[in-house]
Parts: sequence; C-alpha cells; structure tokens
Amino acid sequence: MSDQEFLLDYIVAPDPGAARLTRAVTGRDQEGRETTISVVEERPLTIYLNSQEIVTAMTIGDYPEYLALGFLLNQGMLAPDDEVTGVQYDEELEVVVVRTATETNHEEKLAKKTRTSGCAVGTVFGDMMEGLEGVALPDTQVRTSDLYALAHKINRTPSLYLEAGAIHGTVLCQGDRPLVYMEDVGRHNAVDKIAGWMFLEDADAGDKVLYTTGRLTSEMVIKTAMMGIPVLVSRSGFTAWGVEIAQQVGLTLIGRMRGQRFVCLSGEERLVRDVDPKGVGDEDKKHRRKGAGA
Amino acid sequence: MSDQEFLLDYIVAPDPGAARLTRAVTGRDQEGRETTISVVEERPLTIYLNSQEIVTAMTIGDYPEYLALGFLLNQGMLAPDDEVTGVQYDEELEVVVVRTATETNHEEKLAKKTRTSGCAVGTVFGDMMEGLEGVALPDTQVRTSDLYALAHKINRTPSLYLEAGAIHGTVLCQGDRPLVYMEDVGRHNAVDKIAGWMFLEDADAGDKVLYTTGRLTSEMVIKTAMMGIPVLVSRSGFTAWGVEIAQQVGLTLIGRMRGQRFVCLSGEERLVRDVDPKGVGDEDKKHRRKGAGA
Repeated sequence: MSDQEFLLDYIVAPDPGAARLTRAVTGRDQEGRETTISVVEERPLTIYLNSQEIVTAMTIGDYPEYLALGFLLNQGMLAPDDEVTGVQYDEELEVVVVRTATETNHEEKLAKKTRTSGCAVGTVFGDMMEGLEGVALPDTQVRTSDLYALAHKINRTPSLYLEAGAIHGTVLCQGDRPLVYMEDVGRHNAVDKIAGWMFLEDADAGDKVLYTTGRLTSEMVIKTAMMGIPVLVSRSGFTAWGVEIAQQVGLTLIGRMRGQRFVCLSGEERLVRDVDPKGVGDEDKKHRRKGAGA
Repeated sequence: MSDQEFLLDYIVAPDPGAARLTRAVTGRDQEGRETTISVVEERPLTIYLNSQEIVTAMTIGDYPEYLALGFLLNQGMLAPDDEVTGVQYDEELEVVVVRTATETNHEEKLAKKTRTSGCAVGTVFGDMMEGLEGVALPDTQVRTSDLYALAHKINRTPSLYLEAGAIHGTVLCQGDRPLVYMEDVGRHNAVDKIAGWMFLEDADAGDKVLYTTGRLTSEMVIKTAMMGIPVLVSRSGFTAWGVEIAQQVGLTLIGRMRGQRFVCLSGEERLVRDVDPKGVGDEDKKHRRKGAGA
C-alpha cells in the first residue's frame, strides 16, 4: 500500500481545506516578525428537539445535523428507536432543529432537569448516567496489530489538527480501517457527530473501535458506551471515574497510546496480542501531537 | 538560584502527593506486563448560589470554595462587589453553597436562562458575553524575558500533570513569578479556582499574567477578561473567536508558546522584547507536555 492509499478507507475524512472551518490570522512571532497562521473557527450552534431549546454548543461548524442528533442520542434525550422525521439546519440563525414523530418524555424530563441544572463540563450529567442503565456491550475481541495500524493511519491523515491545531479528533474504526474521522473545537462534539452519523447510516456498533485524541474522562466513556461501541482508544490519559465506568459496563479502555506504547485499564482479556510491540517502534516527531490541549 | 528555588515564589502550588487527588490503577501495558499507574480523580461538585442550584461540575476535587466562587464570578452570576457572607462545602454531599447578603437579580436571571438553555461546552454562554460589556483592561506592558522565565518555572514545577497526566493547569503570575498554580480535570475549573482565590484575597488583576496549558478559546478569553487580567499566555493554540474577543477587549493574547517560540495575535504593542529568543533555546523533551488533551 502506498503511503496515503489508506485514505481510501474513509467514508468521511476531514476536510482541512474547507474555507468555512479555518481562518488566516496575522500576528507576530517571538522575533517580532509578521506571521500569518491558520486558526480554527468556533461558532455557537443552538440545538432544538421539536419546540424545546436544548443547548447551545460551541462548534467548528461542520456537520450540524450529525452533531445535533448525536448530542441528543448521547444525552439519552433521543432513543435509538425514536422516529426522526426531519433535521433542519439554518446557517444564518445558527440553529438546528431535530423533529420526531411523537414528542417523547425526554423533552418533558429535560424541561424539568435543566431548570435546576446547567453544566460545567458539557452535559446534563444525571441524564447520561441514567442512560447507561441496562447497557451491555458485546464481547468483541480486538487485535493489537489493528490498533497500531489505526494509530499509524490516523496520525498521517490530513486533518484540521495538522492544518491549524487546537482541535480534537475522534475516529470510528473497524478492524484496521478508519471509517469516519470527525474533528471539533468542542471536546465532545467530535464524538457526538460520529453518533449522529451512525444513527443516520444505521451503522452497527458492536464491531467498531472508537479512537480519540482526547482524555478518557467519565463523559467520554459514557458516550462511547451509549453508542454501543465496545472499545475506546486514546493517545491521552485516564481519569479514575472513566476507568471505573468502563469496568462497570465492560468497555475495553486503552490510553496513552503513542508509538508502540499503550496502557489497558479495562477489558484487557479481549485484547489479541498478535504483534510484537517492539517492531512498531516509537512515534516519529512529525506526527506527534503537540498538546492540542483542552 | 538553584534549580527548584523558584518554588518559593508560589503562594499556592500544586500538591501532587495529595492522596485524595489521584488513585493507583492497575492494568497491562503493550507487552502484557502488569502496570500500575497514577490516575487523576474526577468527581461531581454541585454549586448553589443561596437556595438556587446552579451547576454540577466535574472536578478533581480540591479547592471547592474557590471553584464555586470563581465559577459564579466568571459567569457574571456574582458581581465583584456582592457581599459574600459564607461559602460552605459538604464533602459527603459533594455540594458547595455560596451565600450572599442580598439575593441579586443574577439568580432570577439564571432561573430564567437555564430553563431553556443548558450548555454543551461548559458555560451559560449568553451570560458570559453580557458580562463582558464595559470591561476595559489596563494597558499593562509585559516583558518577553518574564514570559520565558514563567514558562521555564511552570514546566518544572512538581504537579499533578507530571504525576498523572490528563489534567490542565492555569497559573496566575506577576512579573517573572508564578503565584497561584491550579490544576483540574474540568477544562475551565482551573481558571475558575484562580478567580475564586483572587476574589477572597482581594488580589489586583491589572499587573498579572495568566498562563494556561489549555487552548485559547472564546470561553477562556472571556473568563480572563472577566477577571480583569490583561495578558493570557498558552502552550496551546487559538480559535478564531478567541482571537476576535481578545482584540475587542484589548487583551494581549499569546499562544503556541513552547521553548523560544510563540505567536502573539492580539495586543502585540504591549510586548517589551527585552531578550533574544535564540538564547532561550527549545524545550527539553522531559518537560514537554504530551498532548494532555481535552
């Protein structure tokens, strides 16, 4: 396979050249020289479920329909079997409306919950924990050779991160193929956009792996479990609660994956170690992420 | 100055050894070897303003009083001249209550706002933009020699990041002295804790610099401006809206600061370039942050 042939694996790949997603901004560098850099956009998007205003998310602005659907699904405000009759995006108003055939109790519940509870980390947390009840993930095996192949391909995929930095990426994968690569400034929007894509495409979750550049916090683990994906992999580290929830729901959780290294803190028994890590080597400097951060 | 003598500069330094903030978790590494790593805690903290429940934040759990005060101040729900009569933290209930002498219209406004608007990125955004009206930052000069000295000291300060990773840090600085170094898993909690500290200590903001490991998003820039701090510096990158707001309120905004390099995208005229960057050199590998992420 030629160096970039794996790009054909993608169903949805990043579009770092899209004019609407970055902006050239001019400033000065450490030597006082004028310098123009590419900076990611960040815009508000207000999500409605039928007539109920749910949330205003800060997003880079691509795939608003996927983001809205995925957010509602991952919050448990939309059930996988709810009939979605339409998703309308108005670019000028920065609004997206998800319509369902029948208004569900999710809206009513929400109206009650958000009166007393905003959020400081990106979710109406109580709702999310509730949504986890009864979640059982399939006992899917995962080969370490596939994980290494995925990391290698994802790091080499042209992306907004490589173009402008300051952004997180999440990739839906199957075997050694990265399928859908979403990026966003909002830390959980990338994974919500994948959830929205899976819902509209009616994609199976049980044979998938989710790769993220962000940390493995409770919220990230809950969202992955809500999506029914049994394996979550990250370059970044863990939080204790993230690990605890992964162990509870039977999610295989792999963090600190860089070059040949990784640590598995949940579901290790499902790993098929079919390759010698020493043959993988370390990350080359060019493809190392530089603390994309927050 | 000996290598670690600068630690005496701190009024509040990280406490990476605190038992309550990290947990040892055992898993397996890439070779299948049992490995025990230190992982940061993450717990919910519900903030009340008088009798009104405001928000549940996910936090590492230190300085809940600073976090509650800072969050309310940075959201514009508490005014700098409001009389705070008490801040009570209940560890078991994971609740902190901020009491004021008179209930203000902030609570009323909040009750109205949160009924229709949760948040997907960590704030009730409308409130924050409102809070910025009338903010004027002082025309404070900043020496590049101080910025380099700060970055050097902060990177070498023993921290939860160096101990366990997966955490963000924000440091309140003055001249070449780091004064208050807060860390948290919640991306904006670290800066809120600094705001709370400044409020209780009645600290001047006009001669300070805020250093953060996180990205320079709109929310980070707004919070810094709300705190009255005229200079914001980060290792990470920018978003376009973050830059725009910094330019509007006259905040000096410096990003991508690693080793000798940085980019200034707002308020560059206040930089005093008193040192040759070439003498600073590049970051050594040991102190480079490894994509702490999200």
